[in-house]
Amino acid sequence: METMNYSIIRYILCRVIEFAGLFFLLPCLVAVIYQEQEGYAFLLVAVGCLLLGGIGKHWKPKSKVFYAKEGFVTVSLSWILLSVIGALPFYLTREIPSYVDALFETVSGLTTTGGTILTDVEVLSRCTQFWRCFTHWIGGMGVLVLILAILPLSGSYNMHLMRAESPGPSVGKLVPKVRNTAKILYGIYIAITLTQIILLFFAGMPLYDAITLSFSTTGTGGFGLLNSSIAEYPMATQTIFMIFMILCGVNFNLYYLFLIRKPKDAIKSEELWLYLGLMFGGAVLIALNIRDQFDSVYETFHTALFHTASIMTTTGFSTVDFNLWPEFSKMVLLLLMIIGACAGSTGGGFKVSRLLIVIKSIRNELSYVVHPRSIKKIHVDGHTVSESVIKSTQIYVMTYVAIYIVSVLLLSLDKFDFVTNFSAVAANLNNVGPGFSAVGPTGNFSQYSVFSKFVLMFDMLTGRLELFPMLILFSPKTWKR
Amino acid sequence: METMNYSIIRYILCRVIEFAGLFFLLPCLVAVIYQEQEGYAFLLVAVGCLLLGGIGKHWKPKSKVFYAKEGFVTVSLSWILLSVIGALPFYLTREIPSYVDALFETVSGLTTTGGTILTDVEVLSRCTQFWRCFTHWIGGMGVLVLILAILPLSGSYNMHLMRAESPGPSVGKLVPKVRNTAKILYGIYIAITLTQIILLFFAGMPLYDAITLSFSTTGTGGFGLLNSSIAEYPMATQTIFMIFMILCGVNFNLYYLFLIRKPKDAIKSEELWLYLGLMFGGAVLIALNIRDQFDSVYETFHTALFHTASIMTTTGFSTVDFNLWPEFSKMVLLLLMIIGACAGSTGGGFKVSRLLIVIKSIRNELSYVVHPRSIKKIHVDGHTVSESVIKSTQIYVMTYVAIYIVSVLLLSLDKFDFVTNFSAVAANLNNVGPGFSAVGPTGNFSQYSVFSKFVLMFDMLTGRLELFPMLILFSPKTWKR
Repeated sequence: METMNYSIIRYILCRVIEFAGLFFLLPCLVAVIYQEQEGYAFLLVAVGCLLLGGIGKHWKPKSKVFYAKEGFVTVSLSWILLSVIGALPFYLTREIPSYVDALFETVSGLTTTGGTILTDVEVLSRCTQFWRCFTHWIGGMGVLVLILAILPLSGSYNMHLMRAESPGPSVGKLVPKVRNTAKILYGIYIAITLTQIILLFFAGMPLYDAITLSFSTTGTGGFGLLNSSIAEYPMATQTIFMIFMILCGVNFNLYYLFLIRKPKDAIKSEELWLYLGLMFGGAVLIALNIRDQFDSVYETFHTALFHTASIMTTTGFSTVDFNLWPEFSKMVLLLLMIIGACAGSTGGGFKVSRLLIVIKSIRNELSYVVHPRSIKKIHVDGHTVSESVIKSTQIYVMTYVAIYIVSVLLLSLDKFDFVTNFSAVAANLNNVGPGFSAVGPTGNFSQYSVFSKFVLMFDMLTGRLELFPMLILFSPKTWKR
Repeated sequence: METMNYSIIRYILCRVIEFAGLFFLLPCLVAVIYQEQEGYAFLLVAVGCLLLGGIGKHWKPKSKVFYAKEGFVTVSLSWILLSVIGALPFYLTREIPSYVDALFETVSGLTTTGGTILTDVEVLSRCTQFWRCFTHWIGGMGVLVLILAILPLSGSYNMHLMRAESPGPSVGKLVPKVRNTAKILYGIYIAITLTQIILLFFAGMPLYDAITLSFSTTGTGGFGLLNSSIAEYPMATQTIFMIFMILCGVNFNLYYLFLIRKPKDAIKSEELWLYLGLMFGGAVLIALNIRDQFDSVYETFHTALFHTASIMTTTGFSTVDFNLWPEFSKMVLLLLMIIGACAGSTGGGFKVSRLLIVIKSIRNELSYVVHPRSIKKIHVDGHTVSESVIKSTQIYVMTYVAIYIVSVLLLSLDKFDFVTNFSAVAANLNNVGPGFSAVGPTGNFSQYSVFSKFVLMFDMLTGRLELFPMLILFSPKTWKR
């Protein structure tokens, strides 16, 4: 067993801090435009980060040895570090007086969860609101993927970093070079975001709102500018949000297949059809269940589809208080929360591709039990799924359930009921945002104790990084020499 | 692919009906002693079964071909048939006026769940109460295991039937012959039951109560004679119940090891220590959580341990209304409900041995991710766990979660809240009995709709037979030619 290569981890963390410094310049710019005092807090943190990261990166790593272990640890530490730094402006501007709450808000932003501890988001300064939504955008595709796309890092660590940060049971390269893959992914991401900004602007939304809310949508985050989420926007605008949520819950590889003129390969993706089938199927079930609450069939189905899309892509926008819906509709939403979006999207959750492997594994086992002599392979999109992917998916299920159960158990030490705790874990571990009961669309997470908030922060980070990086970071074995 | 050997399935089902006829003679005897009219209903069904089974068994099977497929189908059909027949006396005596309710009560009895649709069990006749509790005893060890122990069946089906009916990730034979294994298991079972009857009798309980309640305990069922479960019995008697619940949640193979004078092998069982550790650990946590509700430390811990034992062995007896406990205590109980008892015991649930494999699999995967070149085997009790057992355990988890989620979704169409539905599925799929909220220790399942009752009956049977037999029975693939 090799000891951990600390020097390279330190080096990459310095680059992350440097990038964080650059990120903070954007809210500074917003503060300049709107002449807000709060901008100084962002400037202070930006300068601090640029200095710290800029100086730190001159100590080059002693060794370039970089294995999966270093990849997981680097990615987990990067996300924790970004959260700790990203929370500073909230705290320094005194817009969130408690640092733990500021940290919760930042973790929720970066992990694209979108659950908040704020009871009133409308009083925030524009630069702070911008930063809140921008954390969604960065977290959606991932900060290390961005660094890989921009910096000419060489060595074996590219793939390990990409694997640890990108969602899905098997992360592949689109093109031979990891750096180019990262560039293509961010290129598509930027194009989708710009398209949404333009559409929202032409639908009559002020540019500032269009930009910030597009960050929240394409990152499938869910932070809004109004306390009522996006209920107050006209139906046409809501439709734009809906379409872009659905688009960003799709595996970005499929867009690349379109770009290289292989649309047939994209269209035959089993994950895509299961994703759309579950979303529209869920919407039909909910529409039937809530039909007496609306005047027209169109409005009923629009509302139902908006929420299955919002919940399944783990964005968390809402136009009505779905906590008041009948039990069956809430169960459909809870199920979609847990399933989540496609692998390789900006959405969270268990991922549709994993569900596909789970369904096929169960079917395979049933047929194996009945006919022990017929051993079948599992195929997805016409390709055989490797044994190691199947095995790690199965272990993913078990680990997911274990973390879920322990989290609910720990939250039950707090003062809330089972529905609140159970849905709070669903909403945070899957990076959705709102849950039910006290943490429903009109509620928030502010009433939880500090201990519970740390449990939920752990869940958000663990969910976004797909369990293993965070578990490996906190496993004593990783640090044994 | 071979077609199903229908003739042998029919033949074994006839033997099951014949045995059911014999079972019904016991409540007839009780009716004679207490001179109850209800005895005629039992006699009628007994005679019908003996005639039907006695005549049917004369059509010998055309072929002795018997594979795993036939084993699973036979076991599932036997349990459904026993439930359908076992419900008749409840209905004929008009003590349960609805046949669906009578069926629910019988399924709950046979699967050792112990959840009831009765609001008042004290008005039942003595022969009916006897039958209710006796279904627990038969279901605890299994009716086909009993048939295997008694009838000189020859051929390859013994092992397939035993595997399909006995609980645990890997069912093994204690001795080379399946028939002798079945005899040993029933021998131990009868010895434990007789010991409890004698102890309860000497503790001052009437013989009738001692016999029926011992059936409920050793089958880890939970039906009682009083509406207050066993809250009204003195503490010494409650302690007897507690000890026998704990004993019957242990793998019966360990008692065999004691019998053949290999106590050291029994004592080193990892499953045993995890089982006891979770039960006592859970009791300590609950005792700390509910300490202000009792006068003495002893009473607090006694109550806590009684309920962790009752819930974890999936018996379901209660001495207080644990639905009124704080959220954290309820979560500990919910967790123990799902974990359940040891493999090869009369208890239900996910089984401690599976939990052991799950924990070791996750640990293994974490260390594999960190050190990909070090592939380790999973060991339990010093033996390597085979890949096929690990794989089927992992698929068991996924199937379990899938059935759980679908059941909660279907129940949500009914009028109850999430806590009721979620705990109802936990209580039925794990064969525990009481859940929380409307189905807590003071509630019952009578208010659920007929559809919901069928969902819960499916869960009880699926849980008792460990998922695959019932799924295979209802899978169209099984019946394809």
